[in-house]
Formats: sequence, C-alpha cells, structure tokens
Amino acid sequence: MFPLNAWYIAGWDHQIGRHLLQRQICNKRMVLYRKQDGSAVALDDACWHRLVPLSAGKLNGDNVACPYHGLEFNGAGRCVHMPSQETLNPSACVHSYPVIERHRFVWVWPGDPQLADAARIPNLYQNDHPDWAGDGGTTHLECDYRLLIDNLMDLTHETFVHASSIGNAAVAEAPFRVSQDDEKVIVTRWMLDIDPPPFFRKQLADVKVDRWQIINFRAPSAVTIDVGVAPTGTGAPEGDRSKGVTGFVVHVATPETETSCNYYWAFLRNYELRSQRLTTDWRESARTIFGEDKHILELQQRAILENPGREFYPLNIDGGALLARRRIDEMLKSEQGLVKSKSATESVVHLHREAVQ
Amino acid sequence: MFPLNAWYIAGWDHQIGRHLLQRQICNKRMVLYRKQDGSAVALDDACWHRLVPLSAGKLNGDNVACPYHGLEFNGAGRCVHMPSQETLNPSACVHSYPVIERHRFVWVWPGDPQLADAARIPNLYQNDHPDWAGDGGTTHLECDYRLLIDNLMDLTHETFVHASSIGNAAVAEAPFRVSQDDEKVIVTRWMLDIDPPPFFRKQLADVKVDRWQIINFRAPSAVTIDVGVAPTGTGAPEGDRSKGVTGFVVHVATPETETSCNYYWAFLRNYELRSQRLTTDWRESARTIFGEDKHILELQQRAILENPGREFYPLNIDGGALLARRRIDEMLKSEQGLVKSKSATESVVHLHREAVQ
Amino acid sequence: MFPLNAWYIAGWDHQIGRHLLQRQICNKRMVLYRKQDGSAVALDDACWHRLVPLSAGKLNGDNVACPYHGLEFNGAGRCVHMPSQETLNPSACVHSYPVIERHRFVWVWPGDPQLADAARIPNLYQNDHPDWAGDGGTTHLECDYRLLIDNLMDLTHETFVHASSIGNAAVAEAPFRVSQDDEKVIVTRWMLDIDPPPFFRKQLADVKVDRWQIINFRAPSAVTIDVGVAPTGTGAPEGDRSKGVTGFVVHVATPETETSCNYYWAFLRNYELRSQRLTTDWRESARTIFGEDKHILELQQRAILENPGREFYPLNIDGGALLARRRIDEMLKSEQGLVKSKSATESVVHLHREAVQ
Repeated sequence: MFPLNAWYIAGWDHQIGRHLLQRQICNKRMVLYRKQDGSAVALDDACWHRLVPLSAGKLNGDNVACPYHGLEFNGAGRCVHMPSQETLNPSACVHSYPVIERHRFVWVWPGDPQLADAARIPNLYQNDHPDWAGDGGTTHLECDYRLLIDNLMDLTHETFVHASSIGNAAVAEAPFRVSQDDEKVIVTRWMLDIDPPPFFRKQLADVKVDRWQIINFRAPSAVTIDVGVAPTGTGAPEGDRSKGVTGFVVHVATPETETSCNYYWAFLRNYELRSQRLTTDWRESARTIFGEDKHILELQQRAILENPGREFYPLNIDGGALLARRRIDEMLKSEQGLVKSKSATESVVHLHREAVQ
Repeated sequence: MFPLNAWYIAGWDHQIGRHLLQRQICNKRMVLYRKQDGSAVALDDACWHRLVPLSAGKLNGDNVACPYHGLEFNGAGRCVHMPSQETLNPSACVHSYPVIERHRFVWVWPGDPQLADAARIPNLYQNDHPDWAGDGGTTHLECDYRLLIDNLMDLTHETFVHASSIGNAAVAEAPFRVSQDDEKVIVTRWMLDIDPPPFFRKQLADVKVDRWQIINFRAPSAVTIDVGVAPTGTGAPEGDRSKGVTGFVVHVATPETETSCNYYWAFLRNYELRSQRLTTDWRESARTIFGEDKHILELQQRAILENPGREFYPLNIDGGALLARRRIDEMLKSEQGLVKSKSATESVVHLHREAVQ
Repeated sequence: MFPLNAWYIAGWDHQIGRHLLQRQICNKRMVLYRKQDGSAVALDDACWHRLVPLSAGKLNGDNVACPYHGLEFNGAGRCVHMPSQETLNPSACVHSYPVIERHRFVWVWPGDPQLADAARIPNLYQNDHPDWAGDGGTTHLECDYRLLIDNLMDLTHETFVHASSIGNAAVAEAPFRVSQDDEKVIVTRWMLDIDPPPFFRKQLADVKVDRWQIINFRAPSAVTIDVGVAPTGTGAPEGDRSKGVTGFVVHVATPETETSCNYYWAFLRNYELRSQRLTTDWRESARTIFGEDKHILELQQRAILENPGREFYPLNIDGGALLARRRIDEMLKSEQGLVKSKSATESVVHLHREAVQ
C-alpha cells in the first residue's frame, strides 16, 4: 500500500531535538532524536533485548538508553552498553534508518538502506529559501494517505468541502489539463482575464489578471500547488511572472498505517517576505481548510472499511489522481520484484470542466 | 441472522424530516430524508463515486448532494448531477430502498425490492388511531435483536429484571398457553378473579377482576402485548371486554448489526384518551422499564460473545421464544433458497407455571 | 500460555464477601462470594439457562440467583430453583471451582478439580503470621503475566525503572547466583560488608552490614523476595540472622487473559510489628514502585503485539527468568498430555554481574 523504498517526512526540523520522539512510518515504529552535533537519528523503536520501546527511555549523550535494563544504542543502532555483561554481543543492534534533513523537514527511508538516494527527496526548496516566506504545520489523518493524494490532485472539491472558506464556483468552472513526465504528474488550470480573487487583491488591485493553479505530484506522496496571479497581458501564461505574485503550497503525506497518515503542509509566498502577520494568517487559514479535508477524508476511510469490495468510479476530474495512483502502483510493483513498466511517456489528457453549480 | 426480505422500522415519523439522517439497518448504512411532498426516501449511504457518506452532505430540493464533489442523487437513487461532466454515466446510482410510512413508523425493506409487499407490514394500527392514545420511544441495544424477542415472549423476567417497577410474583405464578397460527406466535395468560393491579386500580376500583396478557409475535421482529382487566363475570375471557380497559404495548426490533439493534416501543391505551399526563407518564415509565431490559440484554450479549459455542438450555417458560426463533429461522432458510418448511400448523403447548418465589 | 491445573489468587480475603464479585482468571469468568459460614465459593459466571452473568444477580442465602429469570445455584454449582418448572433438570449446573483460603488470599483452581491439591499452594505464611507484619495490594496489568515474572527474577531493572525510588547502582553491581531445586528457582545476591542502605539504616545504624536479596520462584506465578541486613560478622551469610532484620516481599500474578493479569503483592517485615505507620508506609511505597513496573511492562506488551515474530535475546541477567519460564513451559507440556521432562535436577549457574553504570 506504501512503497518502503522512498523518502518520507518524519517531522518538521523543530520537532526533532534533544529528546526522544516516537513516530510510526509505514507501520514501522521509530524513535527519533538529534545527536550533540545536531544531526538527526532514526532507530527502530524496540530494544533488541526485550522489545521495550526505546522512545520511553533516556537520551544519554549521542546514545539512547532502554528504560527497562539500560541497554544503550548509538546513532548507528549498535548496542554500546549492556548491564552485567563483560562482552557485548556483536549482533546486538537495532535498525538505523537513513535520515536526511532538507528544506525544514527530516526525511527517513524505511526501506532498504542500500537504495537510499538523497536525489530522490522532492525539491521543496521554497520552504527554506530567502526569496520565500511562510510556515506550515502537521495534521494527523485517520485515512489511507492515498485518499489525501486523490483529494489534492483535483480542486473541484473546494467548492463543496471548503464552501465556507475558499470554495468558489468560478474556479471550478475553468478547464484544466492533466499531463505527466518521468518525474511528476501535473494538473494545470489557467483562468485568464478575470477579476483578481480576494486573496491576491491587495497586491494587484483594480486590474484584470491571469490566474494559475499548477498541481505537481511526485510519487509516492508529495503534492505541491503553485498558485498566483499576474496582470493580464504581462506574459504570465507564457512564463513571465515578473509582474505577478506567487503562492506555493506544499503537501506531503507520510503513511503511518494502512489507514492513518501524517499530513505535513506549508503555505509559502514570494512577496511581503517580512510580514509575520501574513505568515501566521496563511498558516492558520491553511490549518482550518485542511481540517475540512480531514473531516471528509476520515468519513471516506470509514466508508471504505464498511464497504469492502466496493470500487471507486472515476470521473473526468479524477484524471490527475488516477495518474498519481498509477505512479504509486508502479513503485509498489517495482518493490515486489516485478519488472517496472516502462517509464511513463509524456501523455496529455485534455479535460474540460463544466460548471459545477 | 436477520432476514433481509422484511420490513423494518427505520424511525418514528417525526424522526425523518427535511434533513439527512443516517441509519444502519441489517448492516446496511442508509441515509433517510423526506422529499418536498413529504414522502420518505432511503438511499444507500455511500456516494457512487468514492463512497463518502451522503448523510454528511446536503439536502438540495428532493436530491441529496455528496459533501465531497457535489454529485447529486434523486429519491430514486439516480445521479442527476456530476461535476465537470457533460454526460452522466447512466449506471451512476445508489440503491434506493422501498419505504412505506404506516402507523407512525417509517418502514424500509433492505432486501430485494421486487419482493417488497406492503401487506407484510405488521398491523400496529393502535399506534395511530382515534380510539387509542399513547406514545413511545426508541432504545438502542448493544445486542442481537433476537435476544429482545426472547425477552418479550416470556414475562417471567419481570419478577427479576423489573423487581423495582412492575415485577410481581403473582403474575409469574399464573399458567400460560403458547399457540401459533400462520401469521403469529401467541402466548396467552389469564389471571381470573384477582385484585386489580395498581396500574389499573384507578379505572376499576374495589372489584375483583379478570386480567389478561396476550403476547403476539410476527416474524421477524414485531411483538405486541395486549394487556388489560375487566370486572370478573363480565365476560372478558369469553371475548366481551366492554366493561374493561385495555393497554397495548408495541415492541419492534430493527437489527443494526449482528450485535446491536434499535428497539422501537410504544405504550397505548383505549381509555382516558385526552390525558396527556397519562400518555407522558406511561411513556416515561416504559422508557425506564425497557432500560432495565437493556441492561440485562447487553450483559447477555457480552456473555454470549465471551462464551463461543455455549448453548442456551430451554425451560418451559421459553416455549414462546422457541417458536418465534423457529419462525425467524424459516425466513432465513427461505431467503437462502432452501425450501421453506411447510407452513406451521396450529400447535398448542400447555405449560403450567409454578410459583417463582 | 498459562497452566490451568494450578492455584491462582482470585482475591484478597477482604475482597471476597457477602456480595457477588466477578473475576476473570485464565480466560474463565467466575463469580465469587462467601457462604453464610464464611467459606468462599467460585462459580462459572454464566447462567446455565441463557449465559447471563450470575455476578449481576443476587446473593440469596448460600445461593446465587440469576438476574434474568431467577434460576438459583448453590455453592456446588447445582441449580436449586427454576421458574415455572416442577422438576429441575439434573444436568442444570454451572462449574464450581475448587477454592481454598490461605495466607490472606483466596485461591482458585481453574483446571481439572480432581487434580486440585492443596499442598501445591505456595507457602506464603509470612502474610498471615504473628511474627510478621505488613500489608499489600493489587495492581492490574495489561500484560502477559510472564512479563511480570521475568521482571521479578532480575533486579537489575531497579536501577532504570525505579531510578527515582529504590534504584541503586551499588546493588546492581553485586554478583548473583541462579540455582534451582524441584520446587523452585532461586536467584541469590549477597552484598558483604557494606554501609547499610537507607531503608534499613534506622534499625542498624552506624555499622557495616551484610545485605541479601533472595528471589524464589514457584511455578506458575509466585515470586517471593527475601531481603535484609545483619551486622557484618554476625553470621548472616552462614544462616544466623538473629542480629539482623528481614523484609519479605510477596508477588503473585494471576493471568486474566493472554495479555492481562492481576498482580497481588505484599510487603512484610519481622520487626516493629506494631507500627501501623511502617505497614502503611511500606505498602504505599510498594504501590508506587510496582506502578513503575506496570508502566514498563505494559509498554513491553504493546511492543510485543506490534512486533509479531520478534524474539527476546537473553542476557546474563535473564538467567533466573529463563529457568522460571522453563518451569512454566513444563507445566504447560504436562497439561497437554506430553510426558513431563524428568524433574529438573539441581543446576547452578554462576553469573558475575558487571557494574551497570
């Protein structure tokens, strides 16, 4: 259900520190902490001796000590102290997961460490770059992480799920385009020559604008949404956004179990970089909006469990989600030793959105 | 465990309205509402598209709109709106259950709609007739609905379960008679020439009375109890109740799951029809008494789950319950395509009750 | 997982009385009470008729009456009253478990009554003897009872689990000796010529002492720990404790299910017998300390359930626990009709404890 040979976010940079933090990632319980040099460590959260969770123990320098009998393990997972033993069993160790900290997130690799390749971490540089500002949070979802991916790959649901916040029939009426390349699945929507939406009006008052929403999915679980507006005629659709403003929304799901995940999100912008008010306002607005998704997704998960064997029926709006699911399935097949289907060639699906209401 | 080709109460008339109500009946989740003309609708509570419960959506005229992507279904279960689709998939529909409103209850048929026959709704006319007054309620039970049927088919338990309310050793001492016909199982008890019980004393003070308790079971889950008193010698045992007063207790169980059900009950009378005090008093007394049954039945259910394979041993007092269970079993066999055993012929079991205490 | 042909504590003497008490022992639900002559009774807690728990009923003289239909069972489990029956079914009975009250505990035998031998109750006479004082309590643990046995057979964990109370690196540094005989597994630790620990200092101020900790395990689930100090040179190691003081800690686990148990414990002493302050102080200190064990053991149980198939790796400190487990396994094999492995001959394992910190 989730590829193990992939990078997943274990936490925000500030969540991992000089204390023991338990996380369950792809059904694996890990204990996370930082060593004295600041580097992050992720170990299997079960003592080699009698399985007691190390996360209930103590951090002792760069080592973690089991709360039961005091066995100590270093950051590589090797046991470096046993009570009442003159010699340590050389096989006494717990699994140490590859960890990389990048773009304000701590990423772990739950699968085969030999395959861990830092280049496969999705590029979320906007989350940690001087030209960008903003912040994010974490929302726990009692659902299969793929339901969140489905949700993010189509914004039609905004009209219904977010009716009281960002829902907007006008957006839903615009046509969109689904495409893909080797790296990602892309859903693109341009709304040309419209009144600026309230959200961006302060920046671009009293002119007609071109507005975009570009969704990028990178398997297994990263979705970024590039949103923005620019005055009509200044060339944004052709690539010149210099007269416009851009928001960038990061969404990454980390599976916890088959039916739960952590949803890491951030809401970033490339203007008014010094406004903490705007940073806080956007972050808390996002928290509220993503709480509405949480409600629906958890209802959906319960319905799936209550209706075993029932299938989903795809609509046109699901074009992006279907391609995203296919990418995940390819990763899963590849892990199961099957020959990976040949790299998806560029395919484009044109879909025209009808008015929703 | 429960026949699907049967009518079950989904709610009281006042519970179904211009809002979305979720009910689980025989393991099927339904959403119920009334259309603008007042007629009740019961649909499968899972959107055709992605299973999200429609009951979390909105009522839009006579249609229900999914909370996720706004698909709309009419009262027949047909999808009449999809976002971003020019044409609707003709197979896009959710199951619409046959619904009939009768005698203050909304009845649904969870099984094959072709077999839904309004004539099979048990006749509970007293619940909605000018010669009768009274009211009822709903009690949720965490038990197999058949445990409630067992309970109602023998009133010996009153002495123990309802010791603080209606329990009465004198009642338990009276002999009873179990019989059946094609339609029902009947348990009859007459107590002749006794002092009137407190409950009826106000109506018939200071005379000896004949008292009756006549239990009728109609498969799969309706039990009515006809109770009353008449002055001794006025002919009640022979059929002339004109000098007496009658109470009529309605009990209908609707299975929710194998181990839970809703218990719909009403307590009616054919005298003092205008006394709201009496209506309220009887209803609240019944609620208290049936809460005592709830306690015992839920203990029994837990014991059954904890003792798999353990059987019940029948006593004489279980004669009515055994015949009721047999009727349910016949319905189940019939549904499973087996030849229904030939219609039960009139059989009478005479049982003499010994003193209970 | 637990031998059935064994005595288990069902409760403290004061917990069993003229009321109905439900206990689950080795997955069997029992109802316990005392008859009018004070003797304790343990019956299967499910009425013969319809399984309703008798513990929800009433005590009627020496009998228990079912809360549903009033069937009564005597202390031998025989049904002595049925409603509405002239004759009682002679097979109508519930299982009556052998019960013996000894040393302030009420013991039951969940297995074959023919095999119940009072001589197999572990000797805990200190809990009820004029030369001893003290009291105890009961702690419910959400874990396999064997995890508690493991815990008690090695006191190394005191240093970590009880760091804030009795944890003491000095104790952990002392060597210990594991031995066994036909009846028990023994872990012995002597600390010679040391300063008296705070706990015993008041009794033996300002002299060097010899200190002992002698753990005795009797299968399936009784662990006693004999602790004390005597002035060095007065012969305690050779057997003369007349100049010293002794504490005696009783621990007995009663399995409830595969993953829960009741932990009965008492903390006794053979000096200052009249001090209720000391009795209460020790009992409440023990309750706090054993609560720390509860925390770790329940974490361990959850980890075991979350890591199916993962094994424990033994350290030297587990020598006593391994022999205790072997005794339990022998009882289980014996019950399963296998030939019991020949009585364990005296074996001694010398282990030298290294410094723990």
